[in-house]
Amino acid sequence: MLEMISYEAMLEIALEEAKIGHAEGGVPIGAALFDRITGNLLGRGHNKRVQDGDPSSHGETDAFRNAGRQRSYRDTIMVTTLAPCWYCSGLIIQFGIGTVIVGESETFQGGIDWLKEHGVKIIQMDSIECKQLLSGFIHEHPEIWNEDIGEL
Amino acid sequence: MLEMISYEAMLEIALEEAKIGHAEGGVPIGAALFDRITGNLLGRGHNKRVQDGDPSSHGETDAFRNAGRQRSYRDTIMVTTLAPCWYCSGLIIQFGIGTVIVGESETFQGGIDWLKEHGVKIIQMDSIECKQLLSGFIHEHPEIWNEDIGEL
Repeated sequence: MLEMISYEAMLEIALEEAKIGHAEGGVPIGAALFDRITGNLLGRGHNKRVQDGDPSSHGETDAFRNAGRQRSYRDTIMVTTLAPCWYCSGLIIQFGIGTVIVGESETFQGGIDWLKEHGVKIIQMDSIECKQLLSGFIHEHPEIWNEDIGEL
Repeated sequence: MLEMISYEAMLEIALEEAKIGHAEGGVPIGAALFDRITGNLLGRGHNKRVQDGDPSSHGETDAFRNAGRQRSYRDTIMVTTLAPCWYCSGLIIQFGIGTVIVGESETFQGGIDWLKEHGVKIIQMDSIECKQLLSGFIHEHPEIWNEDIGEL
């Protein structure tokens, strides 16, 4: 039970980031990187495609960047409001991030199965708030969403 | 023959970036994104882990970022001095970059096979200069290299 509370508290940070992105007029996806042992927040961030004109800034990569250089990621947890795309899944696999908390994977499936194959522990939160925030944005700005996932 | 000259000229830009990174004391890996149809340079960049304390800045992601928002990547060529890691391979697959010119894949194999499976056209340049530049750096700074590819 304690663990579930902790996961929910972590997702809350990612969701805060998604809401900041939304308020900025951007794609509302947020993420954060935590130390699994201490529970310390290492970095948090959100998608900045629109705000910064930066297509490389997905929620996960922004949180990863803001965490700065880390010697190892084995004992870190990446929490994200949306299932990570191939790009962000590749980040997780390359750097050996051990656990990923996924706000929702209904709007977008991403690389969940690939992550599992590589031994990444996936925790699905099935958050209605995450779904509503993103699906509302996609409804209003389908062209930005398609650009963000590389779909024509 | 014209195409080979063109690929070599593209690799030369990536190599210039790698050398800039080296001169800055960073991991000497560079990349650039080109329009395949016009041959125009869209963005160029290099690994900035050391210089900016930014672990998200691999050669490929830095070039991708510097190219700004693009509507489609199908007709782009990513040229890189080194075979892309899982993170950068994920970027290439997610955004549908059609062609990747690889300076060398001897020092590091990365996701070459995975890219091929996804229909990405891979052009191997087997560049001695790329190999020497990176292997020299790895010899001098093995700990930074290992950090850059997520190895303990």
